[in-house]
Amino acid sequence: MQNFTFYSPTYFVFGKDTENQTGEYVKRFGGTKVLIHYGGGSVIRSGLLDRVKASLEKEGIAYTLLGGVQPNPRSGLVYQGIDLCRSEGVDFILAVGGGSTIDSAKAIAAGTLYDGDFWDFYSGTPIEKALPVATILTISAAGSEGSADSVITKEEGMFKRGASAEAFRPKFSILNPALTQTLPAYQTACGITDIMAHLYERYLTNTKDVEVTDRLLEALLLTMVHEGPKAVADPNNYEARANIMWAGMIGHNNACGVGRSQDWNSHNIEHELSALYDCAHGAGLAVTMPAVFTYVMNHDVMRFAQIATRVWGCQMDFAHPEETAKAGIEALRNFLISIGMPKNFAELGAKEEDIDKLVEVLCYGDGRTGTIDGFVTLNADDCRKIYQLMV
Amino acid sequence: MQNFTFYSPTYFVFGKDTENQTGEYVKRFGGTKVLIHYGGGSVIRSGLLDRVKASLEKEGIAYTLLGGVQPNPRSGLVYQGIDLCRSEGVDFILAVGGGSTIDSAKAIAAGTLYDGDFWDFYSGTPIEKALPVATILTISAAGSEGSADSVITKEEGMFKRGASAEAFRPKFSILNPALTQTLPAYQTACGITDIMAHLYERYLTNTKDVEVTDRLLEALLLTMVHEGPKAVADPNNYEARANIMWAGMIGHNNACGVGRSQDWNSHNIEHELSALYDCAHGAGLAVTMPAVFTYVMNHDVMRFAQIATRVWGCQMDFAHPEETAKAGIEALRNFLISIGMPKNFAELGAKEEDIDKLVEVLCYGDGRTGTIDGFVTLNADDCRKIYQLMV
Repeated sequence: MQNFTFYSPTYFVFGKDTENQTGEYVKRFGGTKVLIHYGGGSVIRSGLLDRVKASLEKEGIAYTLLGGVQPNPRSGLVYQGIDLCRSEGVDFILAVGGGSTIDSAKAIAAGTLYDGDFWDFYSGTPIEKALPVATILTISAAGSEGSADSVITKEEGMFKRGASAEAFRPKFSILNPALTQTLPAYQTACGITDIMAHLYERYLTNTKDVEVTDRLLEALLLTMVHEGPKAVADPNNYEARANIMWAGMIGHNNACGVGRSQDWNSHNIEHELSALYDCAHGAGLAVTMPAVFTYVMNHDVMRFAQIATRVWGCQMDFAHPEETAKAGIEALRNFLISIGMPKNFAELGAKEEDIDKLVEVLCYGDGRTGTIDGFVTLNADDCRKIYQLMV
Repeated sequence: MQNFTFYSPTYFVFGKDTENQTGEYVKRFGGTKVLIHYGGGSVIRSGLLDRVKASLEKEGIAYTLLGGVQPNPRSGLVYQGIDLCRSEGVDFILAVGGGSTIDSAKAIAAGTLYDGDFWDFYSGTPIEKALPVATILTISAAGSEGSADSVITKEEGMFKRGASAEAFRPKFSILNPALTQTLPAYQTACGITDIMAHLYERYLTNTKDVEVTDRLLEALLLTMVHEGPKAVADPNNYEARANIMWAGMIGHNNACGVGRSQDWNSHNIEHELSALYDCAHGAGLAVTMPAVFTYVMNHDVMRFAQIATRVWGCQMDFAHPEETAKAGIEALRNFLISIGMPKNFAELGAKEEDIDKLVEVLCYGDGRTGTIDGFVTLNADDCRKIYQLMV
């Protein structure tokens, strides 16, 4: 196991009706002037925004609003949020929504306290400080409610890049599974796929003897396989939503990924798809993961055979472990199709003729120099072949 | 899943040589006058105490020392520590040792800021505040390095009781698996047994549909079954020690136990054994667990069958699930014997003729009124029968 530090100081408030405690927790964590950041109309239509406002008002906490976060959140709104926080004297940012809203809130939080362009942070500049952020989660997917991460798309050039910082860990996160019950099956499945990708990206490691994190990641994948189809079949299944919600958080706050090298090339390769086509990140991952895993499988056949037997219940073929490894990837592909995810470029809305452009941005865009690092270091030729496998 | 809150704000610093960073972390978390609390001579002999002192001195941090913590830590030393902290103006407590030392440190931390008798906290009075505590762990077992818990034995009457508080979560914990390599096989096995008990006590729940935490607990049990015997066979196996150390923390900071009822009757029943005979807590649990599980198995046969198949690899007997359940308990018993744990009263040093006394203290001592609550509520007659099963 590699040396590591782990720090997840978020206060998680989990369960039914917990959004009504928002005001108390904002107060506890020192907020006096709050920016409520959200996406489209669903948090308004569902009455959630009103409940959150009422909870803040009950504690006498002032707030200002900034809606309009899109999926694959954009730099434009981040700049707008930074200006607003400065002009209004905001000292606490409350994200009400999913990963896009939370990631946008984190970017605003860091940018507000920074003299330069916030995009510096998404190009490698370390983040020293940020306004406190808290979340009220409405979709289990990105894990941003417990993570130190944020992903933003820069509108000039459509670069989609991530940043990480301790200051990005939310002060508190309100996780009410019932708030995710209004999600349609497709978005639910996208979220499940994203969570599974976070687990796979950690599972694909070059670090030896990491049984504890292997087992924890398998446990969370087994949970998704068990609970995911229930939530897709019946949006009102609170218990399935609850299991998925906790798995999504604990799967991405990195408690199960410490001390080991990780992959993240499925995310890297997918990011260019959702940046170019504005498709759902989870849907892009459903097409990307089986292609990447098929391409890199021979780098460590036994690792793929292990996940195939332990998670997918494949019989181990001791004479031909590569057959077991392949069967596990096929089982993943079939599972994702079964919950309604696309299986190729056509179903995703991506185009074969764009592959050169995708590879160019992926491998050379925004300062990269021809390769992306991970479980296997991939060059432009590798990435082209992987995109080709998705056609 | 039940509503819950989860807050684990400890900064974990994991890996080789990390104890040399102690001074930096004490500084980061605001300590200026430290009480170094420890047990016997092993932290002196190994040179650990000198390295910790050197690290504090490098940062210009003053300290005072209090050694002498015994296994099953006593109230007497806690009172002494409280006096010392007050007279020396200590503002930060650093526990260098295992669960006993950490639990003693937590008790001193709360007692120092309290006007009354610290034992009030171990009799149910809520803990409002405590001095900040940090840990340098030398044995994987109690999980106190990440937990909100502390267990102390009151010398008058030899009551062993626990207390929990958010203020008991350590500010930071330094987890260097190499520090556990000096432990003899027997103590290593006691630690493994304690960790497994923490997992079983959470697994035995009456809450339905808690797949995510079931799976996480199984993952950690599988890790102990895989890594435990390696550490017992070869004390210098760093990787096995590392897997056990992280499993021990994450298994008891409650990330894997949230939203479900838990048991803790094996701990309750064992506490009287280690209080009376001063045996190792883990050794007591090795004798206690199979007896308790055999006694309560019929309360939920399928739960015991599930852990038998998923953790112990037992074949499910669909016609007779109780046979599978029994086989799982037998597998646990055999595993514990295989790592050198005692299997009955005689091997533990306990006496059949003390059973009435044990039951009396367990069920009526220190304010209890005849029963202990958990997976199954047990009365004095139940507890007598369970102790009888251990003879």
